[in-house]
Amino acid sequence: MSTQSSRFKYSLEKQPPRLGPGGSTHGASVKEFPASVGIAGVSMRLEPGAMRELHWHANAAEWGYVVQGTVRTTIIHPGGDAYTDAFNPGDVWYFPRGYGHAIQNNGDVPAHFILIFDNGDFSEDHTFSITDFIAHVPREIAAQNLGLSLEETELLPAGEVYFAESERPDERSVIATPLPAPELMSMHRYPLGSQRPRLIPGGGTQKLVTEKEFPISKTIAGSVLELQPGALRELHWHPNADEWQYFLSGNAEITVFLAESNAVTEQYEAGDIGYVPMGAGHYIKNTGAEVCRILIGFNSGEYQSIDLSSWLASNPTDLLEGNFGVSGGIIGKFMQGGHFIKRPV
Amino acid sequence: MSTQSSRFKYSLEKQPPRLGPGGSTHGASVKEFPASVGIAGVSMRLEPGAMRELHWHANAAEWGYVVQGTVRTTIIHPGGDAYTDAFNPGDVWYFPRGYGHAIQNNGDVPAHFILIFDNGDFSEDHTFSITDFIAHVPREIAAQNLGLSLEETELLPAGEVYFAESERPDERSVIATPLPAPELMSMHRYPLGSQRPRLIPGGGTQKLVTEKEFPISKTIAGSVLELQPGALRELHWHPNADEWQYFLSGNAEITVFLAESNAVTEQYEAGDIGYVPMGAGHYIKNTGAEVCRILIGFNSGEYQSIDLSSWLASNPTDLLEGNFGVSGGIIGKFMQGGHFIKRPV
Amino acid sequence: MSTQSSRFKYSLEKQPPRLGPGGSTHGASVKEFPASVGIAGVSMRLEPGAMRELHWHANAAEWGYVVQGTVRTTIIHPGGDAYTDAFNPGDVWYFPRGYGHAIQNNGDVPAHFILIFDNGDFSEDHTFSITDFIAHVPREIAAQNLGLSLEETELLPAGEVYFAESERPDERSVIATPLPAPELMSMHRYPLGSQRPRLIPGGGTQKLVTEKEFPISKTIAGSVLELQPGALRELHWHPNADEWQYFLSGNAEITVFLAESNAVTEQYEAGDIGYVPMGAGHYIKNTGAEVCRILIGFNSGEYQSIDLSSWLASNPTDLLEGNFGVSGGIIGKFMQGGHFIKRPV
Repeated sequence: MSTQSSRFKYSLEKQPPRLGPGGSTHGASVKEFPASVGIAGVSMRLEPGAMRELHWHANAAEWGYVVQGTVRTTIIHPGGDAYTDAFNPGDVWYFPRGYGHAIQNNGDVPAHFILIFDNGDFSEDHTFSITDFIAHVPREIAAQNLGLSLEETELLPAGEVYFAESERPDERSVIATPLPAPELMSMHRYPLGSQRPRLIPGGGTQKLVTEKEFPISKTIAGSVLELQPGALRELHWHPNADEWQYFLSGNAEITVFLAESNAVTEQYEAGDIGYVPMGAGHYIKNTGAEVCRILIGFNSGEYQSIDLSSWLASNPTDLLEGNFGVSGGIIGKFMQGGHFIKRPV
Repeated sequence: MSTQSSRFKYSLEKQPPRLGPGGSTHGASVKEFPASVGIAGVSMRLEPGAMRELHWHANAAEWGYVVQGTVRTTIIHPGGDAYTDAFNPGDVWYFPRGYGHAIQNNGDVPAHFILIFDNGDFSEDHTFSITDFIAHVPREIAAQNLGLSLEETELLPAGEVYFAESERPDERSVIATPLPAPELMSMHRYPLGSQRPRLIPGGGTQKLVTEKEFPISKTIAGSVLELQPGALRELHWHPNADEWQYFLSGNAEITVFLAESNAVTEQYEAGDIGYVPMGAGHYIKNTGAEVCRILIGFNSGEYQSIDLSSWLASNPTDLLEGNFGVSGGIIGKFMQGGHFIKRPV
Repeated sequence: MSTQSSRFKYSLEKQPPRLGPGGSTHGASVKEFPASVGIAGVSMRLEPGAMRELHWHANAAEWGYVVQGTVRTTIIHPGGDAYTDAFNPGDVWYFPRGYGHAIQNNGDVPAHFILIFDNGDFSEDHTFSITDFIAHVPREIAAQNLGLSLEETELLPAGEVYFAESERPDERSVIATPLPAPELMSMHRYPLGSQRPRLIPGGGTQKLVTEKEFPISKTIAGSVLELQPGALRELHWHPNADEWQYFLSGNAEITVFLAESNAVTEQYEAGDIGYVPMGAGHYIKNTGAEVCRILIGFNSGEYQSIDLSSWLASNPTDLLEGNFGVSGGIIGKFMQGGHFIKRPV
C-alpha cells in the first residue's frame, strides 16, 4: 500500500560530524537530505567555554533550541543595536537572516542545541565567519579597518576559526548590556520549556512558539511534541509550511501522503530528522514503550494545521455519507472523540 | 505583421474529460497549455446530487465561478472554523491554498463551474482527496484516528473516490450552520452576477471582483466582460498580473504583443481559454455577430490596468508629436472619445 | 590570498552603445554581467529635445539618477492618474514595474542619467514601446482604438521609434499638470543631490534615499558615496539586498568576500559598474589621488548594513579574545575609532 524508503528520513546523528576545537556539528541541507527543500538543520555541541565564532548566514534566518547545557549569544542588528542573551535547556532563539552572531557555552557541562534554517539551500557556502572575512582582505585594509599596525594584524588568525576554545565566561559578563529589570524573555529568547502546554490527557502535549508569542520569529514557528506510548498525532496537514522534525527521544512512525495514491511510511528514532512537504498529509504515531519527544520546526512564523477529525466533524452528515459510501452509523463515529492527539485504543 | 499560432489559446472544452460517477472535468495547467505559467484552470460539471469529494490543493488557492446550476460547498480553515455555502449562477467562491473543501450539486439540473488556480503548476499531483489519504495509511492508524473498529474501517473506500454520486441534499441541510440573519454574501461567496456593471453604452460591460469587494480573495481577481458585436476592449496591459480567459459565448480576436516586434494574434470561440502574460500588451475584439462573454481571472487580488487612450490623453501634446512624428491634428484625435471599450465604428 | 578576475566588475561605458536619433544607451543585465542576478543597469544619454519614447517594463521597476543635464518625464498609473516631472542633476526618480513612462531632455545641454532596475533579467525583451505596440496590431484595430481613419493610421510609425529627436519643450509645458503650490519633491522625484549628507570628516560622505524618504521607492534604495583619497568604506555587508555600483569619478578597490575562503578583489574606474551579492562581505577603498564618487543601488527599499567596527565594539571583550586568540590590548584597539568610513592612516 505504501512505499518503504528513506525519502523523508535522515539519520543526522549517525553522520560523521565536522569537528573543531571544543565543538562538533552535524548538518543537513537539501544536498544531504533531498526532501528538505525549504528547511535545513544542524545539531551542534560545544564544550564549556568553547564558541561558534562570530559569523552570519547570507541566505537564512536561524532558529535555535537548547537541548542540554547553557549558552550565551551575541547578535548585532543593522543600524548597530546589539544584544547578549543567556539560554537554558528548552529555550529558543531567533536570529534574522544576515545578522552577525556568536554562540558560546557559558556553563560547566557540554551544551547541545538544534538549529533550524528557513532555507533548504543553507550551507557553509552561505555562512560567513569573521576571521575568514578579515583573513581574505589585503593586510593593509585589515589594519586600516581595525586600527592596528601591520605587525599587530599579523597576530590575527590566518584563516577561518569556526570553533574556538576559550575561557568559560564569568557570569558577570554573560549579559554584556545591563538590564533595567529582570526579564523572563527577550527580543531574541523565548523560554519554550517553561510554557504551559496544550494537553491531551493520556495522549500527549504540545508546546508551540510562533510569531505571535515571539514577534521576531517571522519566518519560523516551532514546537515540542510529546506523545505517550501508542498515542497518535492524528492525520493532518499544514497548508502554509513545510515541517522539519528532530527526534529527541523515543520511537515513532510517520506516513507522508503525497496525493495520487503515493505515500511513504518511515520509522524514526532519537537523532533522526524527518521532513513533510507543505500540504502533504501525515500522522505521527508513538510506536515505542517510552514517551516520544519531537522538536518540530515550520518555515512560517504562523502555525496552521487542519486535523482530520475536526474536518470530518464540520461537514453535513449527508455529504459524508455520499463521500464515503457508508451509513450514518459509521459517520456518527467519525464525529466523536477528541481531536489533535488520539489516545491509544 | 503578426505570427499566427496557438501559443496563447487552448481549446479546453474540446479535450477529452476526466469522467467519474456523476461528474466530468477538463483541466489545463502549464503542462497542457505552456503559456499559462501563473494560472491553471478547470471546467467541471456535476449531475444533481453528485459531488467532488472532500479534498485540498497543496500549492494553489481556488477561485470558482458558477456558469449553470447550483452547488453547495463546505470548507474548513486552520484552527477549525468551518463554513457551508450555497451558490447560484454568476456567484464566485474563493478557497485559500490548502484549505479542505467539497463541492456538491444541490439542485435538480446539471451544474457547470469554472475553477481558476493561482499557480500554473497546479495539477492532480497537488490535489489531495480524503479517501485517498485514509486509504494510504495503515488500517490500524485509520481505525484509531476515526474511532472505528478494524472491521468498520474495511467498509471505507479502498482508493480515491474523486467524484461521488449521492442524494441531492435536502434544502434544509444546504446551510449546515444556522445564520443569525439572511446574507447577500458570505466570507467565501461573492454574487458577481448581481453586481451593477461598469457600462460603456453600445460597447459592453465589465463586472469585476477584487480583494476590495471580496476580502478573502487575496491572490485572484476576476471579471465577466461582455462585448457588443464589433466592440473593442482597447489596447492595454496589466502591470501586476497574468490574465486567464474562458470564453463563455461568442467569438473574439486577441493580439498579444510581446515587445521587440513580437506579437501573436488568435481567434477564440466558446469553450476556448486564453492567456496573456503580465505586462504584455493586448486587446479583445468581438469579431462575431453575437455578444461575446468572457470570464477573466488575474493572479493578484488587486486589479490594475493601463489603457492606451488614457495613457495618450495624459501626455503633453508636444511629447506625442515628437514620439509619433505626426501633426497636432492627428494627436488631437488620440485624445478624444471614450476609454476602456471602444464602440464599433 | 584572493583571486583576481572580473567576476564582479563590468566596464559598462566601454561597451558599444545602442544608438538612435538623439540618444544612446549602454545596458547590462545578467546576460552581459553574470554576477548581477538581482539588479540590471543602464547608462543613457539624450541630446536636447530628444526623448526615450513612451514605454513600460514588464518585469522591473526603474530607479533613475541624473548625472548631467535636465529631463522631464511623464508617467501613468493604473487607474489613470498621470504625472509630469522635471529633473536636475542629482535628482532621483522611481517608476513602478509596468507603469507607462517617457523621458525627454528638456534642456539645452546633453543629458546623462543612470537607470537601475530591480531585476537582473531585465532586458529589451521586457521593454514595451508604444509605437512597437501600435505597429503590431491590425491596422483596423489601431484605427478604432485611436479614433483615426485608416489613412491617418498609415501616418504613424511602422515600427519601434525607441529614441526620437524632437523640439526642446517650452518651459511652460514641462509641468503639464498645474501645481497648487511650489514643491521641492514630488511623488516620483527625490532631490538626492540637495540632501545634507552623513559626513565623516576627512573620510567622505554618504547621501542615501530609501523608502522612508521616498515612499514610492518600495523596491530600490540608492546612495551617492564620496570617498576622500585613501579613505576606506569599512568592511561590511547588507543582510537584505544586493548592491550595484556605478563609478562616477575616481578609482577604487573592492574585495568581495564569498565565505569558505573565497574572495575576489577588483580595481574600478569611472564608467565601470560593480556588484556585491546579498550578504557578501566587502569594502570600498579609494585608491586614487582624487575624490571617488560612486552611485550605489540596492534591490530593497530598506537600507540595511552591518559594519565590522560596530559589530566588534558590541561584543564582550572576553568573547573577542577567545574568537581571535589575541590579548585584550589588541582587542581594545578594535573598539576605538570611527565607524562607517575610515580616514586614511
